[in-house]
Amino acid sequence: MPGMAITFRLHAVEGAARVGLLNTPHGDVPTPAFMPVATQGSVKALSPDDLKGLGATILLGNTYHLYLRPGPDLVQQMGGLAAFMGWNGPTLTDSGGFQAYSLGPNVKIGEDGIAFRSVLDGSRHLFTPEKAMAFQQAIGADFVMALDQCLKYTQDKDAVCAAMDRTHRWAARCKQAHTSDSQALLGIVQGGVFQDLREESAAYVTGLDFPGYAIGGLSVGEPKSEMYPLTAFTAGLLPPGKLRYLMGVGSPEDLVECVARGIDLFDCALPTRVARNGGLFTRKGRVDVGTAALFRGKEGPVEEGCDCYSCRTFSAGYLHHLFRAKELLALRLASIHNLRFIARLMGDMREAILIGRFAAFAQSFLEGYRTANEEERLRQAGKRMARARE
Amino acid sequence: MPGMAITFRLHAVEGAARVGLLNTPHGDVPTPAFMPVATQGSVKALSPDDLKGLGATILLGNTYHLYLRPGPDLVQQMGGLAAFMGWNGPTLTDSGGFQAYSLGPNVKIGEDGIAFRSVLDGSRHLFTPEKAMAFQQAIGADFVMALDQCLKYTQDKDAVCAAMDRTHRWAARCKQAHTSDSQALLGIVQGGVFQDLREESAAYVTGLDFPGYAIGGLSVGEPKSEMYPLTAFTAGLLPPGKLRYLMGVGSPEDLVECVARGIDLFDCALPTRVARNGGLFTRKGRVDVGTAALFRGKEGPVEEGCDCYSCRTFSAGYLHHLFRAKELLALRLASIHNLRFIARLMGDMREAILIGRFAAFAQSFLEGYRTANEEERLRQAGKRMARARE
Repeated sequence: MPGMAITFRLHAVEGAARVGLLNTPHGDVPTPAFMPVATQGSVKALSPDDLKGLGATILLGNTYHLYLRPGPDLVQQMGGLAAFMGWNGPTLTDSGGFQAYSLGPNVKIGEDGIAFRSVLDGSRHLFTPEKAMAFQQAIGADFVMALDQCLKYTQDKDAVCAAMDRTHRWAARCKQAHTSDSQALLGIVQGGVFQDLREESAAYVTGLDFPGYAIGGLSVGEPKSEMYPLTAFTAGLLPPGKLRYLMGVGSPEDLVECVARGIDLFDCALPTRVARNGGLFTRKGRVDVGTAALFRGKEGPVEEGCDCYSCRTFSAGYLHHLFRAKELLALRLASIHNLRFIARLMGDMREAILIGRFAAFAQSFLEGYRTANEEERLRQAGKRMARARE
Repeated sequence: MPGMAITFRLHAVEGAARVGLLNTPHGDVPTPAFMPVATQGSVKALSPDDLKGLGATILLGNTYHLYLRPGPDLVQQMGGLAAFMGWNGPTLTDSGGFQAYSLGPNVKIGEDGIAFRSVLDGSRHLFTPEKAMAFQQAIGADFVMALDQCLKYTQDKDAVCAAMDRTHRWAARCKQAHTSDSQALLGIVQGGVFQDLREESAAYVTGLDFPGYAIGGLSVGEPKSEMYPLTAFTAGLLPPGKLRYLMGVGSPEDLVECVARGIDLFDCALPTRVARNGGLFTRKGRVDVGTAALFRGKEGPVEEGCDCYSCRTFSAGYLHHLFRAKELLALRLASIHNLRFIARLMGDMREAILIGRFAAFAQSFLEGYRTANEEERLRQAGKRMARARE
């Protein structure tokens, strides 16, 4: 049976929140877990040692990018994605569909698959469910994803329904085409913001019996007031004993909100992208270390009590200087901090669930984080008003 | 007496080549040594741990850049350059004069000093000998440099002579203004490509009795056929027991050629700048890992036998991919490789001098390195011709 080498076991639950262990031939992933994104086979600015050092347990690679460059065959020849990038641990690849669809231009989606032009050279390509399986098999991650049709946030139920139906037919074709014993293929539930479609999609996709399920089509532009309840609703439709992966979600507040709603696995480029722009996570909210004048000449770390390499080694004042001076080291140090922040947050949530204190932890975290963000927003608004008056 | 805490002792000589030990309160520097350049308080793309790991012993900071941002007072308040950047080792700053002069625009050099506009915001500034000393004292490196007037390569002897005379007057003013007990102030010999001026300059500057001497105004555009003999000639004019520093020189072949001519200390941004453009040093010459197709999918390291972190951890094929994909990690890995290459080269030269085998080592290295460069040049020329025929 495909993917038999990979197992998932639940250890504890509190409300909808769950703690589990994902066991793969390349290592264990305690869940809930966050996957840093190694888009082109590298988490931007970081080495595998950096990632191990900050507590990352599993990485995500983007099939779209790796397919275009260096190509699935070359990755396979170099021993697969993990070996290629020097990462001694589990990996997951997406199907490539989301980027093929979202990066454009000239995307055409038909029953056969997604026709697109390369962002690198404009050349024509086609992702079919069968090709998505073959490419991902060559790339060789532990987890591979079914090809799905994702839409941006829309209230057009007919369009969402048609994309969902196509996703279902593609899921069946992926399941058929997936022959690797060493890779676990995860199905994807679509259905947009419509509960009845989410129900229909969950019923169909779980009926195909995948070893785990992703929730797709969220965090694509809908308000949080729709995203959180839909996450809870959809997670509740999935079999309790199997892995639940919410794709493309990774802000600190979203991670807490969605662990609370029963999600086990996340990925998002946001923590590292924000870091490269000088935005650093702290328990009191996000701070902008490069522009906020309060960091100029500040001794001590960006965040007191943070055990990341950057905070243990460098002052906030130095990081401020590195960003002002556009030094490359800034990008690495900030990325390490944010990913360590997320890894610690996931660890804290696992611990809280295990001892039955998750509800209190989540409330406390969100109050602290939101308050600080609110203060920052007010502070920025005040500065804009002050400038406007000048 | 200023700079007393810093000593330099010669251990062995072979011909003009010398092995010594520079002892500072922040650590020892075995010479000949190469200083990586931390322009703005960071060796581009590298952390202090990277630098320790590759065998760097002393770093150079640029006073011009640190003066403009974050400012000498702030560096001082943060504990000085080394503490500010988390570097647990010796440091040296240049005077700022070379960059003030070469980065332009609107530079005016008068007897008082160098008036220039900031590259950051166009604001007006003046470096005098006295200010160069004060700024460098605040920045707090172990070694500081006298303010000199540097010219680009020219055969205009009158201009060179005038700049030299001014450099001498500034050297005396620097010596007068230098009051720090913990910093060693090095004098600079100028005189362009004229032996009689070099003689005059060496006589004047050594007459001021600095604890060590730099050779300035070389590697500024003159042909190697002039630079190498002038290096030998000028080094021979300096007191044997004191440190000799050749400023702005750092290609592998120049390092070997100039150690052979009696130089103890070097700095250059070339190894890291070349690295960021994909040029990697090997004993067989420089290779372009990003563009040379022979690295695509190549297993094994960029250079067999290299003990740098990058070669120990990643395949040449992966590095090739990182450069093709413009991944930030490429810049760090390539910089580590090139600086490790230089650090090993310096260590090999020290070892060779100690056992009286330097002449043979230098000949062997230069033959191997030049041959490979020649082959690469021919190969590139062949490719250009092939393209031209298409």
